[in-house]
Amino acid sequence: MADSDVLIELGEELQARKAASADDSYVASLYAKGRNHILKKLGEEATETVVAGACGSDQELIGETADLWFHSMVLLAHRGLGPAEVLQELERRRGTSGHDEKRSRAEQG
Amino acid sequence: MADSDVLIELGEELQARKAASADDSYVASLYAKGRNHILKKLGEEATETVVAGACGSDQELIGETADLWFHSMVLLAHRGLGPAEVLQELERRRGTSGHDEKRSRAEQG
Amino acid sequence: MADSDVLIELGEELQARKAASADDSYVASLYAKGRNHILKKLGEEATETVVAGACGSDQELIGETADLWFHSMVLLAHRGLGPAEVLQELERRRGTSGHDEKRSRAEQG
Amino acid sequence: MADSDVLIELGEELQARKAASADDSYVASLYAKGRNHILKKLGEEATETVVAGACGSDQELIGETADLWFHSMVLLAHRGLGPAEVLQELERRRGTSGHDEKRSRAEQG
Repeated sequence: MADSDVLIELGEELQARKAASADDSYVASLYAKGRNHILKKLGEEATETVVAGACGSDQELIGETADLWFHSMVLLAHRGLGPAEVLQELERRRGTSGHDEKRSRAEQG
Repeated sequence: MADSDVLIELGEELQARKAASADDSYVASLYAKGRNHILKKLGEEATETVVAGACGSDQELIGETADLWFHSMVLLAHRGLGPAEVLQELERRRGTSGHDEKRSRAEQG
Repeated sequence: MADSDVLIELGEELQARKAASADDSYVASLYAKGRNHILKKLGEEATETVVAGACGSDQELIGETADLWFHSMVLLAHRGLGPAEVLQELERRRGTSGHDEKRSRAEQG
Repeated sequence: MADSDVLIELGEELQARKAASADDSYVASLYAKGRNHILKKLGEEATETVVAGACGSDQELIGETADLWFHSMVLLAHRGLGPAEVLQELERRRGTSGHDEKRSRAEQG
């Protein structure tokens, strides 16, 4: 398995946890608490990633980034979306340099 | 190409942009502005993801999540790290339920 | 003038800037860019406050907190609200210990 | 009492809570959990302010801004700082238009 297929598999597991009990599954407990709770968790994980990026070790930054990606996938799954859509969007943008991309978004927006 | 390999390829491109001019490359311009600027961008992208999660369309949420992941990879690349480390960390945690994971982190921490 | 009256006066100035040109006034330029731009700025300032709180000097933390409060007042002013409402809310909560406050919110919410 | 002196009094109470038990006081429990926990709370409150600013009611925005200011004062108090320093900084900047202020900071920074 390619390394990064872990995201696709995780996305499937996050969907499957919708049928789980909030007592047995951390993810199910997030779903049960609802969208605003998931958004707060995402903000909290982004904060921790920023702190690790500012003055944490490499291992802390990797761990916090994993938490950030994980909770952003929980937010996607709560809407019925998954990592495949995000990866397709990143793929679509590749080849377009960031400066072109920004200009193109500015023209659209 | 499997969808998910895009992260690994993006990580390699982000490393390669270290040799580019800030005039030609958005990513090189982020590197040139330094760590605190990259952290601010990450905070900004997390904010936009939260806004899209709260009241944006599916397409907006996907686009903002792509921005968030992209800029978190810029932060990693600025340190010489990449998505492979994050994917390995997510893989390592799989199988461990979130509740077990939280407990195990609490015991360590 | 008591130090703390500066917030009330700032709130009045932020309302007055609604009549200013975006070319002449930083605040008017924020209003012109709209709500989502103001939210992004708030997220950016929160990020900078967190970075300063994690590993900046006292002076940096004070400066970033000033930026955070300032931009949160811009967000309020954009809605026609001001610091007086926030200070009244803080006053209302005083005397209630945080644990009581949290419990009371949980019972309501 | 001028409305806004509530900040100064809150700042004094937050300092006084350093002597309280974490069981009796929400603020003392934040101090006991340490700086990174306080930073996470600040990130969480910023997230909630952004969500309220994006799609909440006026009353929600006021309440979340109060939470944001409160927790930023907890962060200051944890360092032995208080709202007076922030209000002085805001006072110092007044009269300077934002565009001038940004330019002056760019020249210094």
